[in-house]
Amino acid sequence: LNLYPVIMAGGSGTRFWPLSRKARPKQFLPLVSERALIVDTAARMPPLASLKSTFVVCGKAHAPAVKKLLKGMPASHLLVEPAARNTAPAIGLAAAVIAKHDPAGVLVVLPSDQNVLDLPAFRAALAKAAEIAASGALVTLGIKPTRPETGYGYIQVGGPLPGFASGRRVGAFVEKPDLPKAKAYLASGDYFWNAGIFLFRADAILAEIRKHMPQLADGLDAIGEKVGSKGFTAALGRIFPKLPSVSIDYGVMEKAQNIAVVPADVGWSDVGSFAALPEVRKADAQGNVLQGFTIPVDAHNCVLLGQPGRPLAVIGVSDLVVVDAGDAILVCPKDRSQDVRKVVEALQAAGKVKFL
Amino acid sequence: LNLYPVIMAGGSGTRFWPLSRKARPKQFLPLVSERALIVDTAARMPPLASLKSTFVVCGKAHAPAVKKLLKGMPASHLLVEPAARNTAPAIGLAAAVIAKHDPAGVLVVLPSDQNVLDLPAFRAALAKAAEIAASGALVTLGIKPTRPETGYGYIQVGGPLPGFASGRRVGAFVEKPDLPKAKAYLASGDYFWNAGIFLFRADAILAEIRKHMPQLADGLDAIGEKVGSKGFTAALGRIFPKLPSVSIDYGVMEKAQNIAVVPADVGWSDVGSFAALPEVRKADAQGNVLQGFTIPVDAHNCVLLGQPGRPLAVIGVSDLVVVDAGDAILVCPKDRSQDVRKVVEALQAAGKVKFL
Repeated sequence: LNLYPVIMAGGSGTRFWPLSRKARPKQFLPLVSERALIVDTAARMPPLASLKSTFVVCGKAHAPAVKKLLKGMPASHLLVEPAARNTAPAIGLAAAVIAKHDPAGVLVVLPSDQNVLDLPAFRAALAKAAEIAASGALVTLGIKPTRPETGYGYIQVGGPLPGFASGRRVGAFVEKPDLPKAKAYLASGDYFWNAGIFLFRADAILAEIRKHMPQLADGLDAIGEKVGSKGFTAALGRIFPKLPSVSIDYGVMEKAQNIAVVPADVGWSDVGSFAALPEVRKADAQGNVLQGFTIPVDAHNCVLLGQPGRPLAVIGVSDLVVVDAGDAILVCPKDRSQDVRKVVEALQAAGKVKFL
Repeated sequence: LNLYPVIMAGGSGTRFWPLSRKARPKQFLPLVSERALIVDTAARMPPLASLKSTFVVCGKAHAPAVKKLLKGMPASHLLVEPAARNTAPAIGLAAAVIAKHDPAGVLVVLPSDQNVLDLPAFRAALAKAAEIAASGALVTLGIKPTRPETGYGYIQVGGPLPGFASGRRVGAFVEKPDLPKAKAYLASGDYFWNAGIFLFRADAILAEIRKHMPQLADGLDAIGEKVGSKGFTAALGRIFPKLPSVSIDYGVMEKAQNIAVVPADVGWSDVGSFAALPEVRKADAQGNVLQGFTIPVDAHNCVLLGQPGRPLAVIGVSDLVVVDAGDAILVCPKDRSQDVRKVVEALQAAGKVKFL
């Protein structure tokens, strides 16, 4: 049973401005530890799988950063998308490459920008999911919800999975709910967060892509023929940008029959905004997450990310986010941290590309 | 009637940290206009008096800054205190120097770090006060209070001043009141703020110092003998540090008999903290005082002082002060801006002298 972590690093996003920029999206930031999230993601896999069997899918602009951060990964495992085409083509590409040598190998698809607190539980869940996947099923990890979150899709568990006590059939993939629905999901115990963590054999996901996304399958076949040859990059550059831009959830998972879910209670977080940092980082006695040279005076439940050489003094505030990125500063209440995009929009409108 | 502005620039203070530092106290900051407060203060005097007849009293550390900022002032008018001895010795020194050439000249004592919005009214009040001072009285400007301020001393007006319709006798100098008293003062109309703005003839204040502070008078006489001679600096260095450290209010004004007050409604502000900046600077439509490269999103009644090259983005906050001084950052609610000293204390305790 060979596992191949496939780390999806194509994301951009503005929710961590001013730390995140176009050239340095969230997955490259040391938001949880001293290491970039993508490094934490890769480091979470051993002993299930090593960096030698890890793949990363990312955009051209970020390939050098990935190379630098994941030095032990074979160069051929860095799959650079010539254009962003969402997750179905990205995962399909990884499957096509892996299938060339190990069709029965199990892909462990992992977003590059999440955090997990309980590593033993996480690895145990992945091991169970991998076993199920080895049987040919498409498996998704279902994260046990801890709050009525309206920002995630949910997976409703279905009936038992014959032969696998730790897995369940999938009842349904459910879109992001409104708050009343999210509360009902949380109360029922039958709904889990869809974290975008999937396990399937390379041949299994390619077969499902062939069934539900034939155009994508044709493209992947054409690219797959060139894997390991000199013509690979050229074929990728010619074919990939024309592939349909569809998510693996919508394009395959929601339509496939042979799907399973492994419920997981592993301290998962998508580190969605500055306000989420207290979930994943140690706070001081006043509940403040501190970084750099900070001087909190009567400050409570704040996220204060300063620079080492520049004092960031904060007096008499609660639930405030203050970030000194060196060349830009952000101040906003935790519950407004989703509005950081408005700042990015304002900078864009003003043509201040340097800060984007 | 010769007027000699005497600008008191000995102040230090921490209420404008991180903009203000030991080497760069408030009077040297461009808090109201693009010019340092001390420059605004000097520029307020013409046509009543020119820079050529202006004096500045300051500490050694700040003499170079004063020289640089007030280039048109004669070098001999920069009176450098060898040690800080409060306002009675400082004013006495200026009086002794001026008395040497023009004993009947009228000193206009001005704190270096205040602001005045209504310049014509201010100059008119000073002109009236100067006329009264020319008769030999000690005159103080009484600022018409606009709120029940507990942070200032007050002057209670007394009876009419024979011969001078625009002045009044002083009933009493009153210490900083508590809030109920301050409210009563405001309601009565008989109490004015003591802004530390005094006018008196050089010979008159020296005579009053002789009467109420004989030790100071002796010292000033000894220094006065050397004015204009080579031995002046040496005598100042020897004698001045031993002078009693007493304020002119406590040492002279509260004890003298021949004192008068000229009520003044001139848009005065002592620019006491960041929270006071909206009194003296234009705000945007949302009530924000903005400086540098700021991006206010849904921000109201804030004071946002950024740097030109570094975006300072603020989302969804009200009545907040955010200051980027380049090498240090402050965030605090307006009503906590007096607590900035706690940050300075913390830096001091940590031995971070670079930021003091």
